[in-house]
Amino acid sequence: MTVYKTQATGNDFVMFEDADGAFDPQPKEVAKICDRHFGIGADGLIRVTRPQHVKDISDEDLKACADAHVEWFMDYRNADGSIAQMCGNGSRATALFIRTMHGIGGGGPLKLGTRAGVKELTPMPDDDELGAHVFRVDMGAWKTGDEDAHTVTVAGAPGEGKGTFVDMGNPHIVVVVEDAFSTLPVLEDLDLSRPPVVVPAIEEGQNVEFVRIDEIDGAEDRGEATMRVHERGCGETLSCGTGLCATAVVLHAKTGVNHWRITVRGGKVDVDVTGDDVMLTGPAAIVAKAELL
Amino acid sequence: MTVYKTQATGNDFVMFEDADGAFDPQPKEVAKICDRHFGIGADGLIRVTRPQHVKDISDEDLKACADAHVEWFMDYRNADGSIAQMCGNGSRATALFIRTMHGIGGGGPLKLGTRAGVKELTPMPDDDELGAHVFRVDMGAWKTGDEDAHTVTVAGAPGEGKGTFVDMGNPHIVVVVEDAFSTLPVLEDLDLSRPPVVVPAIEEGQNVEFVRIDEIDGAEDRGEATMRVHERGCGETLSCGTGLCATAVVLHAKTGVNHWRITVRGGKVDVDVTGDDVMLTGPAAIVAKAELL
Repeated sequence: MTVYKTQATGNDFVMFEDADGAFDPQPKEVAKICDRHFGIGADGLIRVTRPQHVKDISDEDLKACADAHVEWFMDYRNADGSIAQMCGNGSRATALFIRTMHGIGGGGPLKLGTRAGVKELTPMPDDDELGAHVFRVDMGAWKTGDEDAHTVTVAGAPGEGKGTFVDMGNPHIVVVVEDAFSTLPVLEDLDLSRPPVVVPAIEEGQNVEFVRIDEIDGAEDRGEATMRVHERGCGETLSCGTGLCATAVVLHAKTGVNHWRITVRGGKVDVDVTGDDVMLTGPAAIVAKAELL
Repeated sequence: MTVYKTQATGNDFVMFEDADGAFDPQPKEVAKICDRHFGIGADGLIRVTRPQHVKDISDEDLKACADAHVEWFMDYRNADGSIAQMCGNGSRATALFIRTMHGIGGGGPLKLGTRAGVKELTPMPDDDELGAHVFRVDMGAWKTGDEDAHTVTVAGAPGEGKGTFVDMGNPHIVVVVEDAFSTLPVLEDLDLSRPPVVVPAIEEGQNVEFVRIDEIDGAEDRGEATMRVHERGCGETLSCGTGLCATAVVLHAKTGVNHWRITVRGGKVDVDVTGDDVMLTGPAAIVAKAELL
């Protein structure tokens, strides 16, 4: 079996094409492949297949794929074998994979089926800071809770921050640090090896983003920020697509600035908050071709 | 460039053959390949080459290789790109790799050059508990400090254990838990996410092994034990070859039993303490063939 190791700002994926629907791995097979010590190792497995070969897809999503003439579907599995709706970083790696294998007609956008609906992936020019193989993906709409309604503390650190709830399909609490409302240490000094404590907590758990505004250019409607993220069930990660979008939504609400370049441990991305949509723009790479023995 | 991902009781390695000495990777290349998110990912990289192509090898070690008619050398690098003397689990994975690629004459032992001298790897039968592709390696001699001379505590846990220093080429403190001398919690409840505290500490740092004796059969001179290990600079790992040997040395000193089957998070191995040598016996596997893109 031939697979590819891909990554997008440090979120990494084992990816394979299954155009004929010939191999739909069981959860335990996914977990074995994604095991970092006994398998190839990755944050998740992406089966690139046709919409009609995806099990558990709703009739509505299947019809949406048909209406949009979607050729390829991102069948995303978490490293533990469970199914995930959507992964922003994974969608860029998938777009690069499909373009590399098959090309995208006329260099235009790719319509990709996902369990969260049809996503449009637009190839963008290489960027000195973002890197190569850049794609932009519309991450859709969001819902927010009351601003700064949650108190967030970090194990071993004095002080506290104020967090805002954002629903990006999954739950986020975004905490702006190094501002007037936070008495937490500077971003780089936070120990995120244990889950931050959020009061009141979100019932289903939450991802927590800590973000510092580094620069704002009001005239250009642009800002720069640095973010770290603790993902529920995972710990601190190098990047989180929905977390980056949630962060930009909160920065936009607080400053009015629409366009953000955000540095995470795994690299840099652009997040644009326009109207009802958040656009995530960042690089992807195909690291290796692997044959499972 | 074609490489292989291999593992031995969960210690995993990126491995490649360089018979001609054509590719000696720089530390930053090693670090990139071993990066779990941006590269292939592994605990270490093993360049399987000829003794004469290894830089930094001593004249004494080179002569020892020549005298023993050593064909292959395990040029081991840690994931950060630094050089390591020896890796017990890595040597078994290397032996399996060489046997798979080239065979070993007559199914007999393989003499493998390492920076800690020539090691003999003996193929053993498959074992229901250990698994397939089992090799035994002579890990050499040891030195011990005074028994139970160190006090060891674990973050967040009540009580303390008594630790014994063992030098296996690298420094270990072995703590027997769930016995009369330990007031620590049971092995499975120890939180090893932070380094255990050893008093007095070893100046160069130490790996710390916690081991519970599960069963002793004095008539058969056999025992069974379960071990967890915190490696300096790495945190808790699935297995540690020298740590397993250090553990068996201490168990032998305390009980007189020579032959131990030890369960670690990454599997099971046999460790035999006989005369002046420790023999480590365990499985290995070749997981995937990978082409770096």
